[in-house]
Amino acid sequence: MDEFELIDRITRQLAQHADVRIGPGDDAAELVLRHGSVLASTDILVEGVHFRQDWTTPYDLGRRAAAQNLADITAMGGTACALLVAVAAPRGTHSSWFTELARGLRDECDLVGASVIGGDLSAGPALVVSVTVLGDCAGGAPVTRAGARPGDVVALAGRLGWSATGLAALQRGATVDAPLLEAYRSPQPPYPAGPLGRAAGATAMIDVSDGLLADAAHIADASAVTLALDAAALQPDAPVVAACDVLGLDPMAAVLTGGEDHAILATFPVAADGTAAVPSPLFRVIGRVLARGEHGVLVDGAPHAGPGGHDHFAEVHHG
Amino acid sequence: MDEFELIDRITRQLAQHADVRIGPGDDAAELVLRHGSVLASTDILVEGVHFRQDWTTPYDLGRRAAAQNLADITAMGGTACALLVAVAAPRGTHSSWFTELARGLRDECDLVGASVIGGDLSAGPALVVSVTVLGDCAGGAPVTRAGARPGDVVALAGRLGWSATGLAALQRGATVDAPLLEAYRSPQPPYPAGPLGRAAGATAMIDVSDGLLADAAHIADASAVTLALDAAALQPDAPVVAACDVLGLDPMAAVLTGGEDHAILATFPVAADGTAAVPSPLFRVIGRVLARGEHGVLVDGAPHAGPGGHDHFAEVHHG
Repeated sequence: MDEFELIDRITRQLAQHADVRIGPGDDAAELVLRHGSVLASTDILVEGVHFRQDWTTPYDLGRRAAAQNLADITAMGGTACALLVAVAAPRGTHSSWFTELARGLRDECDLVGASVIGGDLSAGPALVVSVTVLGDCAGGAPVTRAGARPGDVVALAGRLGWSATGLAALQRGATVDAPLLEAYRSPQPPYPAGPLGRAAGATAMIDVSDGLLADAAHIADASAVTLALDAAALQPDAPVVAACDVLGLDPMAAVLTGGEDHAILATFPVAADGTAAVPSPLFRVIGRVLARGEHGVLVDGAPHAGPGGHDHFAEVHHG
Repeated sequence: MDEFELIDRITRQLAQHADVRIGPGDDAAELVLRHGSVLASTDILVEGVHFRQDWTTPYDLGRRAAAQNLADITAMGGTACALLVAVAAPRGTHSSWFTELARGLRDECDLVGASVIGGDLSAGPALVVSVTVLGDCAGGAPVTRAGARPGDVVALAGRLGWSATGLAALQRGATVDAPLLEAYRSPQPPYPAGPLGRAAGATAMIDVSDGLLADAAHIADASAVTLALDAAALQPDAPVVAACDVLGLDPMAAVLTGGEDHAILATFPVAADGTAAVPSPLFRVIGRVLARGEHGVLVDGAPHAGPGGHDHFAEVHHG
């Protein structure tokens, strides 16, 4: 099978939504955007760095690659419309690897109504999946990291510590609850949270991909504020506690520093009557925004001791 | 230097144009698009497959990675506005490699007024540069591969055979004119040709990246026509002839099958009075569109003997 036959086989299973005027197969795709601007973000996944083939099926890899990009649009308060996917793969990679990846991409995209509108294939020394996502805010202004103000509340939608605990179990060959492994293989970002947060007046939002402390620090630095988190509001979920017990890990560290669950961290203003328009139950309050102090992020009033989150550039899952 | 410091160093040298409302550094960038749709395409370059570090500087690689993506928008009749760039690089890659790559991306983007609005960095076993380009047609309809009609003329803007001859010289360690090596390292797509061709009523257009015969076949298949090319109109440029003489290659084969020069191949309608609105001198007539026959592409009335073009998926520049 040559490149063109393989691309044809892949694209046949990628249904295009009505906003795709020109789909895969030409020099460029054309996507209708009715609101005057487009949101765009890109993420790359590399075999041996972000995933291992013995831990992740190509279907799950497709879901994960889509999810982490779709989450970036959600974190701006937007909705994703389209993905473009470039793949490098060693010679001899079976065609089913590509079609399974495409099926995973498609199934994750279907959760938000996005289409895979373009791509590229190449030979390469390892599997590499590079995804670019396009989306929009339906005419509203995106929510950046830079708008948090002292007095705002800090709120979170989605899970923390699940993916990191699942990965730790795979690394150690330990037996933990299947949902933790699934959380690592195919994260479940809270897609509706972004647009809901924007509609509720969120002043800042971020996709928690590097870990809560690291991403809270990104808001703190961009907004020139301090985020004071409340540990009591960040109690680990029961499966994380149980797995950390097996693994000999600190479940609170998993919550504070585990990446890749793609929760949404946001700040919301507080009205004169003291109420904050936090869209619950999707978001829950986990802290308060203070005037900028010595540290960008505090947990129960003190800077967190220990590593603050993971660095994707240094991340290695084996070796 | 960690991932964030490196990204900061890279993005500092990437000036953003006025249509970038949110640049690099947030979960997603925001690009203003006033015409209701966006064009998007993606291409991946892999070390050892598409380039070798001893043949290409990171600056030239940046220019090439940008050029081949910008050319895809040009070939739709559009103008590129923005790039997103994902890079995987072995641990220990010097920061200057990334900043030089970024400088090359920027300088090529400056030729069309595009901005580098986002990106991602990862470790990886080899250098991989994956670029996504966004653009638009200023409210006009993009020109696809599918609109060529019998009776149209076939026209070409840009060079053929230069990049392939330069690559062959590098592969054999032969001495050829420097512009051929430069054409391989940093192609020069005729950016104005696409919008000009669209304005002149081009019925089909394509970026010649796989080789003239292969890309002519893409128009022929998508439009269900035959493209009859005239060899006399495709005489190789003098530097290609001279280099092929040194290399023992057929210069006409370089013209017909050499890829990566990113010329623009287009078809234009012929009016009742027999004149075709080909925008010269940028475009020159190289053939005629016929009703679909047994072969999609003819050269002087016959199918071309020999390989039809190169296959990026199988492409290897070393070993």
